[in-house]
Amino acid sequence: MSANEPVAKTPPKVSQRGRAAAPPANSNADKKEVPEFEPFGLMPRGPPPLVEFLDILEVDMLQTQSGVNKPHHNTHMYANDRLIVRRGQEFQLKVTFDRPYKPSEDKFAVEFVIGSSPQFNKGTYVPVFVTKERQSPWPGRVVDSTDSVVTVGITPAPDCIVGKWRVYVAVTTPYGIRRTKWDESRDVYVLFNPWAPADSVFLDDYNERLECVLNELGVIYHGAFDDVAERPWNFGQFDYGVLDACLFVMDQAGMPITNRSDPIKVTRIASAMLNSRDDDGVLEGNWGGDYTYGVAPTSWTGSSEILLQFSSTKRPVCYAQCWVYAAVFNTFLRCLGIPGRVVTNFFSAHDNNGDLRTDIILDDKGKIDKLRTVDTIWNYHCWNECFMTRPDLPLGFGGWQVVDATPQETSDGMYRCGPASVLAIKHGQLCFQFDARFVFAEVNSDVVFKSRNRDGTLTTVKVNTSHVGRMVLTKSPGQDTRRDITDHYKFKEGSPEERTVLEKAEEYGSEREKASPPKGDVELVMSLVEVLVGDSFELKLQFNNTSNQTRSVDMYVNGNVVYYTGVTSSEFLFKSPEVTLGPKKAGKEVVIQVPAKDYMRKLVEQANLHFIATGKVKETGQIVSAMRVVTLHTPKLTVEVSGTAKVSEKMLAIIKFTNPFKFHLEDVYVRVEGPGIMPPNFKHYSLVTAGSSVTWTEPFYPRRAGPTRLMASLDCAALRQVYGQTELTIEP
Amino acid sequence: MSANEPVAKTPPKVSQRGRAAAPPANSNADKKEVPEFEPFGLMPRGPPPLVEFLDILEVDMLQTQSGVNKPHHNTHMYANDRLIVRRGQEFQLKVTFDRPYKPSEDKFAVEFVIGSSPQFNKGTYVPVFVTKERQSPWPGRVVDSTDSVVTVGITPAPDCIVGKWRVYVAVTTPYGIRRTKWDESRDVYVLFNPWAPADSVFLDDYNERLECVLNELGVIYHGAFDDVAERPWNFGQFDYGVLDACLFVMDQAGMPITNRSDPIKVTRIASAMLNSRDDDGVLEGNWGGDYTYGVAPTSWTGSSEILLQFSSTKRPVCYAQCWVYAAVFNTFLRCLGIPGRVVTNFFSAHDNNGDLRTDIILDDKGKIDKLRTVDTIWNYHCWNECFMTRPDLPLGFGGWQVVDATPQETSDGMYRCGPASVLAIKHGQLCFQFDARFVFAEVNSDVVFKSRNRDGTLTTVKVNTSHVGRMVLTKSPGQDTRRDITDHYKFKEGSPEERTVLEKAEEYGSEREKASPPKGDVELVMSLVEVLVGDSFELKLQFNNTSNQTRSVDMYVNGNVVYYTGVTSSEFLFKSPEVTLGPKKAGKEVVIQVPAKDYMRKLVEQANLHFIATGKVKETGQIVSAMRVVTLHTPKLTVEVSGTAKVSEKMLAIIKFTNPFKFHLEDVYVRVEGPGIMPPNFKHYSLVTAGSSVTWTEPFYPRRAGPTRLMASLDCAALRQVYGQTELTIEP
Ligand SMILES: [Ca+2]
Ligand SMILES: [Ca+2]
Repeated sequence: MSANEPVAKTPPKVSQRGRAAAPPANSNADKKEVPEFEPFGLMPRGPPPLVEFLDILEVDMLQTQSGVNKPHHNTHMYANDRLIVRRGQEFQLKVTFDRPYKPSEDKFAVEFVIGSSPQFNKGTYVPVFVTKERQSPWPGRVVDSTDSVVTVGITPAPDCIVGKWRVYVAVTTPYGIRRTKWDESRDVYVLFNPWAPADSVFLDDYNERLECVLNELGVIYHGAFDDVAERPWNFGQFDYGVLDACLFVMDQAGMPITNRSDPIKVTRIASAMLNSRDDDGVLEGNWGGDYTYGVAPTSWTGSSEILLQFSSTKRPVCYAQCWVYAAVFNTFLRCLGIPGRVVTNFFSAHDNNGDLRTDIILDDKGKIDKLRTVDTIWNYHCWNECFMTRPDLPLGFGGWQVVDATPQETSDGMYRCGPASVLAIKHGQLCFQFDARFVFAEVNSDVVFKSRNRDGTLTTVKVNTSHVGRMVLTKSPGQDTRRDITDHYKFKEGSPEERTVLEKAEEYGSEREKASPPKGDVELVMSLVEVLVGDSFELKLQFNNTSNQTRSVDMYVNGNVVYYTGVTSSEFLFKSPEVTLGPKKAGKEVVIQVPAKDYMRKLVEQANLHFIATGKVKETGQIVSAMRVVTLHTPKLTVEVSGTAKVSEKMLAIIKFTNPFKFHLEDVYVRVEGPGIMPPNFKHYSLVTAGSSVTWTEPFYPRRAGPTRLMASLDCAALRQVYGQTELTIEP
Repeated sequence: MSANEPVAKTPPKVSQRGRAAAPPANSNADKKEVPEFEPFGLMPRGPPPLVEFLDILEVDMLQTQSGVNKPHHNTHMYANDRLIVRRGQEFQLKVTFDRPYKPSEDKFAVEFVIGSSPQFNKGTYVPVFVTKERQSPWPGRVVDSTDSVVTVGITPAPDCIVGKWRVYVAVTTPYGIRRTKWDESRDVYVLFNPWAPADSVFLDDYNERLECVLNELGVIYHGAFDDVAERPWNFGQFDYGVLDACLFVMDQAGMPITNRSDPIKVTRIASAMLNSRDDDGVLEGNWGGDYTYGVAPTSWTGSSEILLQFSSTKRPVCYAQCWVYAAVFNTFLRCLGIPGRVVTNFFSAHDNNGDLRTDIILDDKGKIDKLRTVDTIWNYHCWNECFMTRPDLPLGFGGWQVVDATPQETSDGMYRCGPASVLAIKHGQLCFQFDARFVFAEVNSDVVFKSRNRDGTLTTVKVNTSHVGRMVLTKSPGQDTRRDITDHYKFKEGSPEERTVLEKAEEYGSEREKASPPKGDVELVMSLVEVLVGDSFELKLQFNNTSNQTRSVDMYVNGNVVYYTGVTSSEFLFKSPEVTLGPKKAGKEVVIQVPAKDYMRKLVEQANLHFIATGKVKETGQIVSAMRVVTLHTPKLTVEVSGTAKVSEKMLAIIKFTNPFKFHLEDVYVRVEGPGIMPPNFKHYSLVTAGSSVTWTEPFYPRRAGPTRLMASLDCAALRQVYGQTELTIEP
């Protein structure tokens, strides 16, 4: 190559000048003033004789919380002074002119504008007319005309762009258009409308609509499928600043304004943008146990603090794990008016690239080969469902859709997931966008035990087809009870429909394990134990020999402290009992003592202990195995209130905690918040000594009447997931 | 909020420790030595008595270009010393032991390992056995055993991972496994295999296979649909270092090794990784005209220079436009063995988020409103097709798939596209992954002329349903002729099938313009002109009045210099003739003079002139319009060779250019390369004065026998897209 080629010394200059006719309008914050007078070109000399035409004195958006608009649009709960309406439904505003309006002579329009370079054909500029002869996609009418005041009724199109619109009133004269100046206080938020049948997020069920759009109080399920734990969450979708923060999330994603009418596109972008991977999105994930430079994922009590921090710092907020992603996503959905809920899948298959197989590798003695077992099954995983039509799919796949913002190693190489039709997942229609295959694997993978041979090959010794996706839960509408929605995702285990679906999925290339090793004659069950963190307990292994001969089993029992992701932190127990079973003798029980001191110093994150017992029957070579997650129950926080429960009256929150352990707790954070009554707040205790109590008394002034809750969390490195709450009703 | 919350001062520490059991294996460059001796645990005291077992003296990969393997696997063209084979097809290697091999006693395996943490169940560790009783997914056999030398035949599974594998020979003894040390010279590349019926990229057509896998010589079509231009391209997929560079592209993308068996996943990742957006991928796009810090997109003559620069600098290469993305993508595909071709779509709808509508806005006089016309139609757009089965879709949608690496503002917010089944696009099956809707819009959008009313609303005045996706071309297999494959993408305009497909697409939410304005009685055609850059010419407007009355038309004729993206650079011509047409009088012609001096100083990029004539018929209000792209033909480069055309003999390349203009050309780059005969090379001339000639004579030494070409380009700011080539055949 010749020597004189220019070498880049500075970052290369790149231009898109020849690439597109105009920069894309992708920020709701972008504003461009519309001219106050827009001449038609044929101007008489001198100033135009506009005196004879209407002049606009005042525009009243009728935006008070109790006014004619907000209660009807179910938007009066937003802590926001601007008008907030839902599309596909009429709202009203009042225009005061300088003289009475004459319908036969006067021509005026109310104009709505969003983003930079507003255009009629892009739906970013919408003039609304009040005469029957002339109508735009947003119907308008004169509701009332008294003296110089005209009340105009306007119905934003049910498929219009969702966001913050600027409002002008324009009078058409023969010389040009005269219009009001932009006044920020007249801006109007237009939201999705689950109450409007023509809106693609229309949800017919009254209770589900109340729950999934308007409820700020959430319950998130975690723990183990047969020992479910729950924690409260304040979604805070109506909190001050949250609506603007949700619009900012789309702006930060550079999402074209014109796409913001479509809930499919909005939720897909949000699933990418709520995690920080690729795009400096809302939440930074951390599964490492060191949360020094942020808030521990277990410590958050609500979403609004997170969204407000993101919109003010424009940097990812530290830290999240799956339920934090799901809870903040849920706030985003409900705030914009898309019905949303958090669901929890117990035993969720992960990181296996959408294969339908999770491999557990045993060595030739039946002991788990930890080095070679790299697939993980999460004890639980939280994601979101949102409700919408799916015009991009064949008929019948609208309804609840899975979206997931937790960053995962997907085959697609991008950190986002969904919307994927729940019905498509149930029916194995994995070819439908977006990411249905991946969610299908999360609820349908087989657990395959493989024994490693000396030559490095593996032999399948046991297949468990029912472990993964054992149960999917969400909160019941209107109540604080669990709702089992497993049957939304799967047909009943062993049913003919289930078989058909799995065959269908195989047609789409999702192969299951084909080997079906012979069923042995020794059975093993590990029984459930409920344990309070810090207690010693017993683990019971029940053996059953169904054969006519004696069986002897070399067992390996591992006890590990695990993350909720199923990843092992450290082993605290290893026993290798040899068990002899008489012929046809049922119910031999092996009891293993688990002293508290063995696991307490090794606890990480959420306090889960994972026991795996595997072994090989000497006589037959059969591999026996059993797994059990023990969720350690944590002590409770006591939350109480005192004072008169009335709007704006002083009340006190009293949060109490007693350290029940024989060791000290260091660097303890207590957080508290309550929808409509107390913004997020926290207190730090450097030390809570063994057996001692702390009490935090904090005054608060309820902002809003109605039933609500005060929710608190306590968090420190040695003890996480301590929650407490109290219900109260605020009088007006 | 309390005051003592820790504030992030340093970048937050983030850990995925609890997130996954092991870091993902996502680099082919990662290596982990396998132990030379792997004991089974039951070791006798002292060194194991291994003397009685086989010892391995030598392993010969039979990797010479003319040997038993490469010609049969169609890999002998790669300028690469290692063994290169295609999966699903047997290759051979020779193992020399310390004594003759005894099949009944001796146990050995050839082991293949890829990436970090190789695992049998992940397909990243594959032992190959030579006995019938014991076989792994890669069948093995003894082809020949003479004295101590065993020739082993090995067939990599037809769905195995594609990449660079490490090879070991291992002997199993009762005490453990004894194996060879890793020797880099024994590494073997395993590629996709379009010759193997069991491979998902199997391509049955002999000619297409030769063209789309083995041909290095490419032709890329550009220009206008009725005045097609072409340029040569050296894909260079067999050039030294290119195969490693292609594997590096996947490593840089962090693509999990286990996904590299699947051409769907490989091509999807590549479509993201070939552009620099999001991921610092291979090519930096620049549509700005200033290429000071890189190579002008029009100047490149081949792909290998780009891929080698990327793999050595690990930084995006400057600069690309669509044909560069497509050409380098094609090299990536062919190099890995996925059949690939570059296609050109003439009049490609872009940046409209998958809508089926491109709007052109006219003011109330029928003149184009440039400020409000933001949609663009590219004069042409190049993308790739690759051939594979689609097990993730219902039966019947395998075959050619569209992938596109040119970054576009998709609704999805990510810069990648495909693979999308060409057949799904033709049949309007837009619900099938990936991005079928977007490609469908590129070939099917309507051009809608809208007239802007005084109140800001728009009225549809004309719909052109056949402008976009006018023609799709690719190179014919085995010949340098054009192949029109428009019918792969669309049914014939106006056919009943076409109507059905558009209805189908509407079912999936892709709405077309519904308004059908009445057809007027005045017709307008602008006739084709072929112009050499620098020439003055005439533009002819043919009017036809089919009515019985006189018609008068206020015409506006714009001449713009445009980028190939359809984006206007500058206007050089504006005329507003008033045309009067007699009744029933056909063929009134208006001639507009276009002097060279008007456009020459304003030329950008590829020399396209775009003329739009619009107007309004006074009597009827009908809008008439016509559009015409004039591709300015450029002078040719003369490329000649002299000397004996024989491998390793010195030859001379003579590249001549005469500046035909009346102005000087500054900063001129001439580039030349030829597959198998000359690596990319360039020369810089600071000045080529008006009317003068330059001749560049460069020696070269052909590396490979067979027919080939020498291709050259000349590029400077005032004149781009000057190409020349010559064919030659090198004797062995
Ligand atoms: Ca992200
Ligand atoms: Ca990229």
